[in-house]
Amino acid sequence: MNYQRILYSLSTILMIIGLVMFFPFFWSLYYGDADFAALFLSGSITFLVGLWGHKNTKLEGDFLNKEVFCLVTLGWLLASFFGALPYLFAGIFPSFADAFFETMSGFTTTGATVLTDIEALPHGILFWRSLTHWLGGMGIIVLFIALFPSVGIGGMQMFQAETPGGSMTQKFKPRISETAKVLWSIYLVMTIVETVLLWLLGMSLFDALCHAFGTVATGGVSTKNASIGYYNSVGIQWVITIFMFLAGANFALYYKVFSTRKLGVYTRNSEFKLYLFFVLVAVGGVTVSIYPGSSHALGESIRQAAFQVVSIITTTGYGTVDFALWPSWGQAILIALMFIGGCAGSTGGGIKVGRILVLLKQAQLELKRSLHPRAILNLKIDDQSMAQENVINVMLFFFLYLVIVFLGTFFMTAGGLDLVTAFTAVVTNLGNVGPGLGLAGPTQNYSFLSPLGKYFLSFLMLLGRLELYTVLVLFQPSFWRKG
Amino acid sequence: MNYQRILYSLSTILMIIGLVMFFPFFWSLYYGDADFAALFLSGSITFLVGLWGHKNTKLEGDFLNKEVFCLVTLGWLLASFFGALPYLFAGIFPSFADAFFETMSGFTTTGATVLTDIEALPHGILFWRSLTHWLGGMGIIVLFIALFPSVGIGGMQMFQAETPGGSMTQKFKPRISETAKVLWSIYLVMTIVETVLLWLLGMSLFDALCHAFGTVATGGVSTKNASIGYYNSVGIQWVITIFMFLAGANFALYYKVFSTRKLGVYTRNSEFKLYLFFVLVAVGGVTVSIYPGSSHALGESIRQAAFQVVSIITTTGYGTVDFALWPSWGQAILIALMFIGGCAGSTGGGIKVGRILVLLKQAQLELKRSLHPRAILNLKIDDQSMAQENVINVMLFFFLYLVIVFLGTFFMTAGGLDLVTAFTAVVTNLGNVGPGLGLAGPTQNYSFLSPLGKYFLSFLMLLGRLELYTVLVLFQPSFWRKG
Repeated sequence: MNYQRILYSLSTILMIIGLVMFFPFFWSLYYGDADFAALFLSGSITFLVGLWGHKNTKLEGDFLNKEVFCLVTLGWLLASFFGALPYLFAGIFPSFADAFFETMSGFTTTGATVLTDIEALPHGILFWRSLTHWLGGMGIIVLFIALFPSVGIGGMQMFQAETPGGSMTQKFKPRISETAKVLWSIYLVMTIVETVLLWLLGMSLFDALCHAFGTVATGGVSTKNASIGYYNSVGIQWVITIFMFLAGANFALYYKVFSTRKLGVYTRNSEFKLYLFFVLVAVGGVTVSIYPGSSHALGESIRQAAFQVVSIITTTGYGTVDFALWPSWGQAILIALMFIGGCAGSTGGGIKVGRILVLLKQAQLELKRSLHPRAILNLKIDDQSMAQENVINVMLFFFLYLVIVFLGTFFMTAGGLDLVTAFTAVVTNLGNVGPGLGLAGPTQNYSFLSPLGKYFLSFLMLLGRLELYTVLVLFQPSFWRKG
Repeated sequence: MNYQRILYSLSTILMIIGLVMFFPFFWSLYYGDADFAALFLSGSITFLVGLWGHKNTKLEGDFLNKEVFCLVTLGWLLASFFGALPYLFAGIFPSFADAFFETMSGFTTTGATVLTDIEALPHGILFWRSLTHWLGGMGIIVLFIALFPSVGIGGMQMFQAETPGGSMTQKFKPRISETAKVLWSIYLVMTIVETVLLWLLGMSLFDALCHAFGTVATGGVSTKNASIGYYNSVGIQWVITIFMFLAGANFALYYKVFSTRKLGVYTRNSEFKLYLFFVLVAVGGVTVSIYPGSSHALGESIRQAAFQVVSIITTTGYGTVDFALWPSWGQAILIALMFIGGCAGSTGGGIKVGRILVLLKQAQLELKRSLHPRAILNLKIDDQSMAQENVINVMLFFFLYLVIVFLGTFFMTAGGLDLVTAFTAVVTNLGNVGPGLGLAGPTQNYSFLSPLGKYFLSFLMLLGRLELYTVLVLFQPSFWRKG
């Protein structure tokens, strides 16, 4: 391994994060809150540490596969370590475990919180919390590649290690740094449009920005204790529902629509169609489960169902109602959506609709094969046949995901949690969703966890965000052998 | 489709089942119970319907794949339909749904019951109940093939359709009818040995036989309300633990040990080693979870843990204690074991250890592949390389299994059950285990279900027993198209 290359890249990432911390610093100054010093200090430390590393290392030669996995995993861990500084310096949390959990939850766009009173926080800290979502949503590494094209072909590997689901879709620009720039531009435009809409609908600019960050990153932290339920506004709820839905779709499709000016891109994309199908069926199912016996109009039940379904399948985690009070089959639908997650190449987490599509199509083939054992059947997605290795990779991902859910549940129950809390906490954090059931329910928070429990869930968030393999390869003994 | 061939086989199966019903009839006469008439009538009707069909159909030509899937699924449905007659004629159940559930639970060796007071049943019915386990454990179709070798090469397909997990192990006799005879002989010897041991340890011959049936079939119905907890005997508990463990291992290995006289067969079999590993780790884990804070000695905690772990992983479902009262992480272990199940080629249900082995080994390969994308890595089990189609088939099985668990949970929650009851009831019935948690807990029974709920769980039992594909192919529209 060439540690120079790795340290050079990590330092550069820290410089970026340090600079970005000055945005919340300016909000803090604007509102005259007391947290400006904490943000200034954190930003300066992070930037200077990065600068020092940057000066003392060199980028030379091409990255090895190993180095890329190391770099991406370490990049996220370091970002969460330094990203926790503002919380610590501002005295928001008594322990590092809490600050680290909150930051990892931010960057991985999980949106789980250990805060008990969000509205008591100063503006700078609130803004930093939402900004971690925004940075992590499109990807810290993708941002690094977009800003520093000099990493060369290593950039492609880094891109895939950070957003492996994206490799299921074609690369749409010959150079990966160009792709990264296009992705960040689409993301930026989407954020601006949503901010303006929310602002027009009555939010303050500050709140509009924070909620736009939380939406397009499919993150889920809010500036209000009651989440989106605070805004008793039909307009705001629908705008956020629509933008969550858009953020859960493959960003490459926006570029294609933009460059071809044809909406047919969507009707020809099987993953998008399956995504839309899941959303519509789930909204229908949840509406039927909550409407009878409720005191409100059908339209309101549909709106609540749509908001919650889209919030969960895109792994955002915003709430307008407490779904822990819903009938158990409405909850069963939401739990399934937590597993499914958003589309490949979106900011959403979970297993990803694209993988479910591969599994469902292969299941069809397999049933055909039982009848005609000698037929040669190859999987095709959107008229492109898929190599068996890739099919196996997708299926293994599903298996590993469920093994991790089981081991995680076991670990959390061993820490004393009941089965429902443990299971849903693991599913929702691994899937980067946020709310679960039981003690981890939508109106609760994770402050009840032990420090070990907080670190463990933080680890699951990272595992889910980097889609398992990137982190898991580091646990192979052969990874650390020379050669 | 050639319906003659299918009807001929079905009729023959009915004849066998009709004749077998006379065994409980004789027990009924012996004990002078009132149910002798019900058993005589059921046996006669079943045999005569079978005989009539047998006379009016012909076995000609070779079976098509389709016909085999039809035959096996219909065979099990018919067996459960006619097998329900004794319960109905003896007036044990008020509704057909109950009698069908109890019979399907018997044949599929699930062991779930809708009875509230087992000890109130007459002896003939109790014996029939245990006998359905014994018939279904090794397989109704396997018995048919063993007794009627004239079905020819169709027998091989039927064998695979009834015990698909068995195809992961080599066929150990050139003729399938020979294989079937060997399997039934091993099974018979095992049953006799256990019966004698239980009888020597103080059970009546009747109870010893019934419990031996329930053990070697990994079924789980008892003649006592408190299951094995009724017998306050350390010896009986260990004998049953050991025989459950043996019944959960691949029966082909017994034949190999018997024919080679070398125990090395076991140390060279990766599936058996993984099975043993799971059992030992789970016993250790459960012991650690239940021993602290309990009032009994360590030895007793180990015995309880071993009994329950082996009972669940082999999908038997016998109980000595109420595991619903255990700490939640002890329960989490048991839930995982319900998914895993016994070895391929055993009488156990679940996903099967052999499939988990393939998934774990492939996961290792896949992590290696992330580091060395161009390496050609083929899966080997016990020094035999496995074709990619077979690997895909195993992985898809895992996926479909979990999809069915989700859809099943959704269906049961829609019927008004809470999440824990619904989820565990589905897992335990699909895996042919028996007890779950919540309302479906180990000291409970399934009488609270609606008739629809009972039919649905019966369907899941069948789906699990025939390992999904055999039943699922019938639901493909193309299956029913001509040609």
